Amino acid sequence: MIVRSIAVYVKEECIEDFIRITKENHEMSIKEPGILRFDVLKSYSDKNKFMLYEVYKTEEAVDAHKETAHYEKWKEAVDSMMAKPRERISYEVIAPLDPSMWQS
Amino acid sequence: MIVRSIAVYVKEECIEDFIRITKENHEMSIKEPGILRFDVLKSYSDKNKFMLYEVYKTEEAVDAHKETAHYEKWKEAVDSMMAKPRERISYEVIAPLDPSMWQS
Repeated sequence: MIVRSIAVYVKEECIEDFIRITKENHEMSIKEPGILRFDVLKSYSDKNKFMLYEVYKTEEAVDAHKETAHYEKWKEAVDSMMAKPRERISYEVIAPLDPSMWQS
Repeated sequence: MIVRSIAVYVKEECIEDFIRITKENHEMSIKEPGILRFDVLKSYSDKNKFMLYEVYKTEEAVDAHKETAHYEKWKEAVDSMMAKPRERISYEVIAPLDPSMWQS
């Protein structure tokens, strides 16, 4: 399993649109066979900051996600909404190691 | 639901011990009735960096966790292992909103 956390900073005037289009991306992404979770979160302390918490079964699933129409649509739609570049960090899983404890 | 991400930076010589004691904390924490997830992750690019991804049902569950013996034990044990202070961010959930999609 591979976990990717993406910190996203959204221009204030775009927050409503960002939430709408990112929820659509969430709905499509969790249907991908290689995706276990695709959590969308909003910071309490910084109203412009969001986190995507994406959990993939394999490296191949990470690549497959980037080739989907819904990812391409999301990426293009949010491009002009970014207050600054997204920050991505990839993690290996220490716990829990059972994949059935990850499926959303 | 409340999600807390905790970035933890561990001294190189303490990494093995940190993983062992944090796995123990994970095992106890996921048994708390107010905790949905307690994921333990290790960065691929920065070997000293870990993330805890903690999902609580309520604010009260966040407080209850801090009063457990296993949290107290973990906190004391890792105190001298930190390379720098932990960074905590609290998030509200945008998606998925169904709590059954969060239980690990």
